Amino acid sequence: MNKISGLKVIAFDADDTLWENETFFREAEKQFADLMKPYVTEKEAMRILFEVEMDNMELYGYGIKAFMLSLIEAGHSLSGYQMTARQTHQLIEIGKGMLNKPVVLLEGVEAVLAQLADKYKLIVATKGDLLDQERKLKKSGLLKYFHHIEVMSDKNTDTYQSLINHLDIEAHELLMVGNSLKSDILPVLNIGGWGAHIPFHTTWQHEVVTEEISSDRFYEVKSMTGLLTYL
Amino acid sequence: MNKISGLKVIAFDADDTLWENETFFREAEKQFADLMKPYVTEKEAMRILFEVEMDNMELYGYGIKAFMLSLIEAGHSLSGYQMTARQTHQLIEIGKGMLNKPVVLLEGVEAVLAQLADKYKLIVATKGDLLDQERKLKKSGLLKYFHHIEVMSDKNTDTYQSLINHLDIEAHELLMVGNSLKSDILPVLNIGGWGAHIPFHTTWQHEVVTEEISSDRFYEVKSMTGLLTYL
Repeated sequence: MNKISGLKVIAFDADDTLWENETFFREAEKQFADLMKPYVTEKEAMRILFEVEMDNMELYGYGIKAFMLSLIEAGHSLSGYQMTARQTHQLIEIGKGMLNKPVVLLEGVEAVLAQLADKYKLIVATKGDLLDQERKLKKSGLLKYFHHIEVMSDKNTDTYQSLINHLDIEAHELLMVGNSLKSDILPVLNIGGWGAHIPFHTTWQHEVVTEEISSDRFYEVKSMTGLLTYL
Repeated sequence: MNKISGLKVIAFDADDTLWENETFFREAEKQFADLMKPYVTEKEAMRILFEVEMDNMELYGYGIKAFMLSLIEAGHSLSGYQMTARQTHQLIEIGKGMLNKPVVLLEGVEAVLAQLADKYKLIVATKGDLLDQERKLKKSGLLKYFHHIEVMSDKNTDTYQSLINHLDIEAHELLMVGNSLKSDILPVLNIGGWGAHIPFHTTWQHEVVTEEISSDRFYEVKSMTGLLTYL
């Protein structure tokens, strides 16, 4: 078993790596489809919502506020503008409910961070809404383990390169830990860093990757605790 | 005339300091009030919108997506949920129009940044939406002058203290330049930094400050060019 060596910084994705998140989006999509049943089938509601989200991605980016606006726009589209103000209000309430969710840490997260914080500089590298991610981090009680929180508008080779420059380290001194191969692992491997993939039970279709990954710096682990084996 | 001395970093607010912004919000509010004329007077529309924005501030934070959601909620409130899907759609279009606005630099900005970039580390310290601010910075052509972009969920003594720690400097080595006394100047003076206030012709009522400012590290200048006199 090859250990990961020469690290200075370990960066953790937040949503579905430190705490549950995607589950709440799946629930919200289900609520949306239920509300839209007067107009279309559940399958059709999901299809249109995803289409609207993708159309809006460049303009809105990631996060719950973007999702809320896309819910409303999808509702307009699939109802032929027949959706009522009360229904729009219910969509807004779904989003507010998401913003107010308690933070549920994933298994082993706090114990592992506590152990790693002595040996490495730990940071959070996350997409999504700045305010929402800060709020979740505060609610989580994990803030004390992190040296820095980097909220990124996107996760690609360019933005990871900026992160590395900004941290004043070399790529091979960074390990990124996350649940998304597309956002957390592949771009970091591509610039010469290390990647540890911890799958979450559900993945947004926008984040799904089908390609094979072959790299000496790639690790697939079952849970946060499993990470310790390689460090 | 006292010069500002011992600086390492000059931080610039973005909206209404580097480029025009508040003007677009004023226009959008006017469009909102016009659309809501079937239900209430312009004055009442503005009052309810501001109330909804303040109610949502903690949950949504700053930025155009937050503003869009507040426009819709204000519309619901003032129309007694009579607002139609077409009207809601028009509100969303107002917001999308704002996100797509060209970036209009304020007078002297580029020349001053070009001159200061050789002597100091320049950064942007801004509230609002991460993606939107990054987009504006790219459109502005100013990206090359800045070492770092800090998007802050709020601007207060705590968040400026974090910024200083993160930059690895002392407070007295930081000058903050901005149009908002409340967000850009007062908290920086309070932690021991320097503040240069460049008023913009319109200020959102949430940012209005009435207190007198008395500090040796406070400068009031008319335009970006005026800043050079003190550096």
